[in-house]
Amino acid sequence: MTDTHSRPNAVRATDVPPRTKPSNYPEPFFSRMAGRSKRQLGHLFGLTNFGVNLTTLAPGGVSALHHRHTTQDEFIYVVEGEIILVTDAGETRLTSGMCAGFPKGGTAHHLANRSAGEASYLEIGDRSPDDVVTYPDDDIAATLAPDGRWVFTHKDGTPY
Amino acid sequence: MTDTHSRPNAVRATDVPPRTKPSNYPEPFFSRMAGRSKRQLGHLFGLTNFGVNLTTLAPGGVSALHHRHTTQDEFIYVVEGEIILVTDAGETRLTSGMCAGFPKGGTAHHLANRSAGEASYLEIGDRSPDDVVTYPDDDIAATLAPDGRWVFTHKDGTPY
Repeated sequence: MTDTHSRPNAVRATDVPPRTKPSNYPEPFFSRMAGRSKRQLGHLFGLTNFGVNLTTLAPGGVSALHHRHTTQDEFIYVVEGEIILVTDAGETRLTSGMCAGFPKGGTAHHLANRSAGEASYLEIGDRSPDDVVTYPDDDIAATLAPDGRWVFTHKDGTPY
Repeated sequence: MTDTHSRPNAVRATDVPPRTKPSNYPEPFFSRMAGRSKRQLGHLFGLTNFGVNLTTLAPGGVSALHHRHTTQDEFIYVVEGEIILVTDAGETRLTSGMCAGFPKGGTAHHLANRSAGEASYLEIGDRSPDDVVTYPDDDIAATLAPDGRWVFTHKDGTPY
């Protein structure tokens, strides 16, 4: 059960501890997320309809595998540093105060920190049911199970 | 129809023009929102599952009437300035980099700019169906119609 009494009224986002599990991906993709750290802001306040994370990328870090969702929308807002947005349309350099949105079924995308310093951004994604994630560049597919967990398989359907 | 070709890859949030209609509330509540300006960032990218706005409050401006949702979650992140968060638990002073979340059915809330300068924040809210908004301090109630529009009535159900 959720203990509503433990929820703060408000917090400084950078004061929230990063989640301990760095990625849900199976290997060899898990290791690629080593430079990524997520502070689960929405979860802290008991939100369930969508997630909000403050995510920090170390130099060389990436936000995710290149991917698109079938039923979920996503949005990112850069808080600090310099990040490269990679989409089917090419690459765009993002700095603090810039944002991008990824409607369901749209371009595949990911963010990469190719700078020498840390970069951080807010990421929002909803929890629409029956979501499927496709990865154009990697042999992996993901399906959102009814219990809210991601099930990862190879593209031929065999499990990881 | 949405013209996907008009969507940018990314934007600087402050470069997005504010929406022209300052509020959906009927009078006398419409006028209370005079100090509020919303840039509809999520809409710009074609997102439909949730909304993301960069909202600016002039000195004396408020985010909304004091309210709570029955099915929608909300989240705010302060980008600039100083904002007072008002909830059932009291008042909390928010500055840049602070955030708060409002799960469905939780405390009523609103933000107020009591400072001498502008303040701005990102606000996220999902579009869960059958939402009802209650306003503890004002004679108004709102219901989300199936077409996505808000229907406002007095608390006794008579229309505005």
